[in-house]
Amino acid sequence: MHKLLILSAEADDYLRLIQAARLPDLECVATTAPEQAIDLGLDCDLALGEPPRLSRALPQLPRLRWVQATWAGVEPLLDPRLRRDYILTNARGIFGVLMSEYVFGYLLAYERHILQRYLAQQAGQWDETQPGTLRGKQIGLLGVGSIGTELARTARRFGMSVRGYTRASESCPDVDRYYHPPNKLTFASGLDYLVCVLPHLNDTRQIIDRALLATLPAHALLVNAGRGNALDETALVEALQSGRLAGAVLDVFNEEPLPPGHIFWRTPNLLVTSHTAAPTFPEDIIEVFLDNYRRLLRGEVLRYQVNFELGY
Amino acid sequence: MHKLLILSAEADDYLRLIQAARLPDLECVATTAPEQAIDLGLDCDLALGEPPRLSRALPQLPRLRWVQATWAGVEPLLDPRLRRDYILTNARGIFGVLMSEYVFGYLLAYERHILQRYLAQQAGQWDETQPGTLRGKQIGLLGVGSIGTELARTARRFGMSVRGYTRASESCPDVDRYYHPPNKLTFASGLDYLVCVLPHLNDTRQIIDRALLATLPAHALLVNAGRGNALDETALVEALQSGRLAGAVLDVFNEEPLPPGHIFWRTPNLLVTSHTAAPTFPEDIIEVFLDNYRRLLRGEVLRYQVNFELGY
Repeated sequence: MHKLLILSAEADDYLRLIQAARLPDLECVATTAPEQAIDLGLDCDLALGEPPRLSRALPQLPRLRWVQATWAGVEPLLDPRLRRDYILTNARGIFGVLMSEYVFGYLLAYERHILQRYLAQQAGQWDETQPGTLRGKQIGLLGVGSIGTELARTARRFGMSVRGYTRASESCPDVDRYYHPPNKLTFASGLDYLVCVLPHLNDTRQIIDRALLATLPAHALLVNAGRGNALDETALVEALQSGRLAGAVLDVFNEEPLPPGHIFWRTPNLLVTSHTAAPTFPEDIIEVFLDNYRRLLRGEVLRYQVNFELGY
Repeated sequence: MHKLLILSAEADDYLRLIQAARLPDLECVATTAPEQAIDLGLDCDLALGEPPRLSRALPQLPRLRWVQATWAGVEPLLDPRLRRDYILTNARGIFGVLMSEYVFGYLLAYERHILQRYLAQQAGQWDETQPGTLRGKQIGLLGVGSIGTELARTARRFGMSVRGYTRASESCPDVDRYYHPPNKLTFASGLDYLVCVLPHLNDTRQIIDRALLATLPAHALLVNAGRGNALDETALVEALQSGRLAGAVLDVFNEEPLPPGHIFWRTPNLLVTSHTAAPTFPEDIIEVFLDNYRRLLRGEVLRYQVNFELGY
């Protein structure tokens, strides 16, 4: 018999979905509050939830064997002061489609002047300004994992050419050309859009730096939907204020929520999207959990295991 | 020897592109002004340009044999008082990709709350409202010609299911289910998005009527990127004002430019995009002309001929 602690803002949804799946040999307890783990979690060997909640409950789970995170990013669980004597799996393979809607939504809004036309309408103006087009443009992907692969496929659908920047991998058929360190600036040269979907890692820290931003053409648009640490925020503000870069759409930040006084709120041509690019729908996440639970019962290797050292 | 009158707001661009193609047996004259056709057009057997300009020049072209319109819509040339003693070809097969960027740009802007998030940012608010998604939604296409076919393919890429409403044709593999007259309301029932790309025809007049709008779910979004006559404007305003319909994005209108006092400028949840959905890029249009000119020289049938009676 296994016992699962559901520790999530959407605890009720997860409980309902798991009970509906009628999994064998499984008992569940559910709460939104990490402090309740001290009672509820005593004999739980499994846990599912958001990494910040789970990190607070970790000391209260003596029998813990496997944790399924409901997010892709698991930084709160990677703190070296925390235990690592369990299997950690994260949510993967489900965010690509949602991230693709986010990225192409903003790329199209940019080319199609959706905000400008809205403002023109408020002013009662028939705005016939010729829109731009994605077709024929160059998109550069910083990171080509499961999310980047999905972005590349959609970019192809819109007639774009695709560059990928990775440590070494070259496995996505929709990437026209791959670049690897130290060729970051060659990668950036001539891009129309730079899209970052990198996880939070030590060697991705400020990968979008002053030199990279200076290499992008002045008409380029930056989208950061990975993690905030990938960006030199000061260098971006300078590039936008001086007009050396046309625009930026940022979903993630070094500090979230973005503090009230932060200059990003009022930097020209910068859009803040408040970490909503890839929403976690419990219906999707639960598929990952169900698959992994069945693997556990069969004694198989779980999918999407996180390496605590590498961080992904 | 043929002589071509270029009569276009972008006369210089077209002249440059045609001269660059070094077509045999062709002389060109170019102007933006229809009234100059009386001098320039005397010995022209060919003409290329925008339908409104061409319609004014028609009486001044005694040798006219073939007209290549640079638009898909050729209504100004279909006026029964005008001559029809020439071959009329329109621009086709090039707007689907652009129209796809327009339609999915606005569908994604709607699901992703792009306007609301922009307004939240102006107010300094970290807006974590969960976005919607295209995946799994039902899109209904009013008209499945070359443009509708392209929309259907993009919809599939985003994981949507696709209904098509046509007079009789069922040739697009990306349409999951076809509907034909008189089953318009069955077609509309349960749609998340209704997208009209119909041309201006007598039997498409007010095809989007009160009954159709009442059949759509309250959360549905209407996009009209075909022609203004397809829509009962009064019925739409009532549906939006009463909240029976979630939103509308209109590119085309019965009167264009939309008059300053028109209620559409200030109808809630209605976006006006000023007939910019499928911009005509001379580089695209010219491909159609070059292909047709070579067919003319070889004595072949020209592509995209318009039937003056059917109107397309």
